[in-house]
Amino acid sequence: MEINPDDLPWQSIYKIMIGSIVPRPIGWISTLDVDGLPNLAPFSFFNAVCPNPPHVVFCPMIRGSDTSHKDTLRNVKNTGEFVVNVVTEPLAEAMNLTSTELPLGINEFEVAGLVAEPSRVVRPPRVAASPVHYECRLAHILEFGDQPGSGAAVIGRVVHLHVSDAVLIGEDKIDLASLKPVGRLAGSAYCRVTDVFEMIRPPSQIRSG
Amino acid sequence: MEINPDDLPWQSIYKIMIGSIVPRPIGWISTLDVDGLPNLAPFSFFNAVCPNPPHVVFCPMIRGSDTSHKDTLRNVKNTGEFVVNVVTEPLAEAMNLTSTELPLGINEFEVAGLVAEPSRVVRPPRVAASPVHYECRLAHILEFGDQPGSGAAVIGRVVHLHVSDAVLIGEDKIDLASLKPVGRLAGSAYCRVTDVFEMIRPPSQIRSG
Repeated sequence: MEINPDDLPWQSIYKIMIGSIVPRPIGWISTLDVDGLPNLAPFSFFNAVCPNPPHVVFCPMIRGSDTSHKDTLRNVKNTGEFVVNVVTEPLAEAMNLTSTELPLGINEFEVAGLVAEPSRVVRPPRVAASPVHYECRLAHILEFGDQPGSGAAVIGRVVHLHVSDAVLIGEDKIDLASLKPVGRLAGSAYCRVTDVFEMIRPPSQIRSG
Repeated sequence: MEINPDDLPWQSIYKIMIGSIVPRPIGWISTLDVDGLPNLAPFSFFNAVCPNPPHVVFCPMIRGSDTSHKDTLRNVKNTGEFVVNVVTEPLAEAMNLTSTELPLGINEFEVAGLVAEPSRVVRPPRVAASPVHYECRLAHILEFGDQPGSGAAVIGRVVHLHVSDAVLIGEDKIDLASLKPVGRLAGSAYCRVTDVFEMIRPPSQIRSG
């Protein structure tokens, strides 16, 4: 099927994107509103940007007919801070409970039975049970329209990083079997990362010097 | 381990990021240089941005001691166009062959034994054997430093979309079992998406009207 995106409803383009850009990592993002109330929501249009200096990106989307942006985006705009909490198999059910639209002012930590712990550098709390936390300050927001299905790219500078010893081997190697990450697919589908294989990158053919 | 990123070598931060932000989708990106020679390289700092209008993002990183940007970034800057080819299990070995640094001017399609087919809207060719193609025009580039480990966020507007009938159910549902996507992990590790489970999103608690 050859598609001019202007000729297909955005909901169909969305289904194709979430079905073919897979598997996606999940950024479970905690923020504070201007009154200091915590918010927590998962985003799978999420990834690393680079390590030096470390940046991450997530892309909240306008949902529903009211075209209201997600609370997370509003909070990041108002406060300039967020925390990325890594989602693991034991946390998957709690993450899912935070994925619905709750009335503004409802605390997802309480809804999902999660303990919030203070972050080290930014004000939004961390999910205590998450083994890896990226504490971020807002670096850039790019917005792509204001209609349902429109999104924004939110890029944060990682100003503090926490890694639980339980998932670390040595100083910087993450043990996948201990981390037990969860990936996002289309619809209601998620995946465990258990069917792993190795491919060695061929040696560089660039001569140095 | 609590980490101030300024106190850890960027290579260690990179290892933590690629080990904990998992599983990552792979954007296998074809471009043309100013002389019209094709380039093809995989990027796992890649994701959808939004469907309306459709945008995707990928983040090339400066590697090696020469701080030269990847050919892909140079080509996108010079030509304003790229194609995202979706990587499947049958294409994994070929994708890996295109992941190394080749001398500028070497055609990765030939190195990996891949057939290039013309795109419909942009000039860079597609990987013919890839079942999903996102043809893109450059929308934004944000750059985060010029040192090894520094990266850029390249955001493209999807101007044409191709989905093979072999992976489609109906008009817009991608059949995961037919697609057989490959995800990226740390080091030499990749994953198949076979260990799938479902979680129903709780109903919205926002009253409309």
